[in-house]
Amino acid sequence: MDYSRRIGLLRRRLTKAGLHGLIVTSLPDLRYLSGFTGSSAALAVTRRSARLFTDSRYTTQAAQEVSAAEVEIVSRSVSEAAVQWMAAQPGVEFAGFDPDHTTVAHLSRWKAALPARLRRSFLSALAAPLVEQLRMVKDEDELALMSQAALVGCKLFEHILTVIRPGLAEFEVAAELEHQARLLGAEGMSFETIVAAGARSAMPHGHATAAKLPRNGFVVMDFGVILKGYCSDMTRTVHLGRPKAEERAAYEAVLEAQLAGVAAVGPRASSGEVDEAARGVLRRAGLAESFTHSTGHGVGLEIHEPPRIGAGEKTRLLPGMVITIEPGIYLPGRFGIRIEDTVAVTQTGSLVLTPAPKALIEL
Amino acid sequence: MDYSRRIGLLRRRLTKAGLHGLIVTSLPDLRYLSGFTGSSAALAVTRRSARLFTDSRYTTQAAQEVSAAEVEIVSRSVSEAAVQWMAAQPGVEFAGFDPDHTTVAHLSRWKAALPARLRRSFLSALAAPLVEQLRMVKDEDELALMSQAALVGCKLFEHILTVIRPGLAEFEVAAELEHQARLLGAEGMSFETIVAAGARSAMPHGHATAAKLPRNGFVVMDFGVILKGYCSDMTRTVHLGRPKAEERAAYEAVLEAQLAGVAAVGPRASSGEVDEAARGVLRRAGLAESFTHSTGHGVGLEIHEPPRIGAGEKTRLLPGMVITIEPGIYLPGRFGIRIEDTVAVTQTGSLVLTPAPKALIEL
Repeated sequence: MDYSRRIGLLRRRLTKAGLHGLIVTSLPDLRYLSGFTGSSAALAVTRRSARLFTDSRYTTQAAQEVSAAEVEIVSRSVSEAAVQWMAAQPGVEFAGFDPDHTTVAHLSRWKAALPARLRRSFLSALAAPLVEQLRMVKDEDELALMSQAALVGCKLFEHILTVIRPGLAEFEVAAELEHQARLLGAEGMSFETIVAAGARSAMPHGHATAAKLPRNGFVVMDFGVILKGYCSDMTRTVHLGRPKAEERAAYEAVLEAQLAGVAAVGPRASSGEVDEAARGVLRRAGLAESFTHSTGHGVGLEIHEPPRIGAGEKTRLLPGMVITIEPGIYLPGRFGIRIEDTVAVTQTGSLVLTPAPKALIEL
Repeated sequence: MDYSRRIGLLRRRLTKAGLHGLIVTSLPDLRYLSGFTGSSAALAVTRRSARLFTDSRYTTQAAQEVSAAEVEIVSRSVSEAAVQWMAAQPGVEFAGFDPDHTTVAHLSRWKAALPARLRRSFLSALAAPLVEQLRMVKDEDELALMSQAALVGCKLFEHILTVIRPGLAEFEVAAELEHQARLLGAEGMSFETIVAAGARSAMPHGHATAAKLPRNGFVVMDFGVILKGYCSDMTRTVHLGRPKAEERAAYEAVLEAQLAGVAAVGPRASSGEVDEAARGVLRRAGLAESFTHSTGHGVGLEIHEPPRIGAGEKTRLLPGMVITIEPGIYLPGRFGIRIEDTVAVTQTGSLVLTPAPKALIEL
């Protein structure tokens, strides 16, 4: 990972925003800029230098992980130390902070830690999340890792097809997915695994419960792994027993919507257009009202990142963005279906990072 | 769970703080007060009523889970809806919010959503985290659940003893713990499982890596499950092969410190005294500098909650508090040892919720 390049890109944005420095406290932002994976740190970036503040638990780890910034071990609040260091840098009169990742309590302590003359003007809330915006476009190292993570997801799906059978509890399916993920090298899951069977498949966010898989019905599985910090995300819906004609038709509609969504992804599309490509298919199938969420979201160091792929969204897709395409329909008390891929935007169109089968599987 | 009682207790504290209402957005606080387990909601509590705001993904779930508050489904920001509802309640002139769980961006949007005449005075940052303070003292329902969660931890330890052997990768041990946890009914793990073997045991926060368990050396395992929202937390250190005399002596010192810490827990002790009870043993053994962290922390709906059990801490322990006692020593490049129990403060002393063996186990 070329952290110096990332810090360089950030500096250009800082200059454009009229800022002399930035206080970074969001851990994914901080990891993106410096490589540090510990649980407590703050990073101060000025136009000339960058310094990471952490505590003595991480002395060894920070030395191993961080090369693009100086490291200072402190025994007091890491973010107060970062703010005070920033205030002492020559030429730094305005330092930005991200209001979406700064609590009211922190800001008030930061101000109290500043010399009185700086309290009013030194800290400026960013108008736009500069680091999150950089993170939206993945570089080659990130794309390679995300592809690897997505392929672990595909292997999990392949494996779970040999396990699923009526009578198994939903949580046993989740346990098996998670166990295999670990054995395939994942650090953990990127969110709580969803396994929702039978009528429970109609709950978009169904936790895996003790409910047994039915002899006849859909099973929605939505899961992702974390590999070297990067999240994968995919959903597949399979059918136990023979589906009724209506279930089959509904599955085909969701699949068609998903394929239309993927086909719409490309470097000139807006995220709203991608949403509409999928949503339009379900609307024409009379299922518009059963598709109750947006079509997808960005993914990377966090499982949910910008851009949001939803109705009316204006963000232009750019090569290197990685998003999910996950239309679904939910018929309360009856059944639900969702199909989700993780997709990278390329120079010419898109690349599906999760190429596991999507045609209806009957088990 | 008696949510009405909890909301009643909160109201008394609000009155004492001179507030007419509270905006709750921290999800564990919100779950504690209402039972709601979804991922997006805000709760407004006034002296007379309580109302939970969530979105249409959670219509069914909120109806099932929430009885002590009214539920309103909104399609805009849940916290802005809560603030606006609060501002429209008769007699509500001052509403508190928790500055440690409110971002600068949220507060600014909340203010913008208020009528101009209320923008200055309506919202007050709490001086103390009222709900977190209530959560420190667990009620009987919570203690029963936490005991259950802790016993799952003990079963995991018993099981893993039959699995551990030289040559197994650390992550395979973690995978096995996590798989069994799921099969024993856990929703997930309460933090990233630590398995650190050989020289890696000297890293207090060692992730489980591909490193193999050695023929001879310590293995530190720190793990916890989530059961119906409540976290368990325990650490055991075992030895593969025959320990050297120095390793044995170090283990005995940590165990003595841990037992002294547990023995100091009671309804009249301060958390600093408990820390000192454990720390003093290691100091007298010449190991003070190798014990680099605090003795423990509160645990409940979150894996780290108040009170902190550290040097000089003044919090008085009260019956119903649940804390960890986890002294450890870390000798970089050589070995590390940590022993941790979860302990409930009782009327007369303490109850260890994790009664798994602590005498040195050689495998």
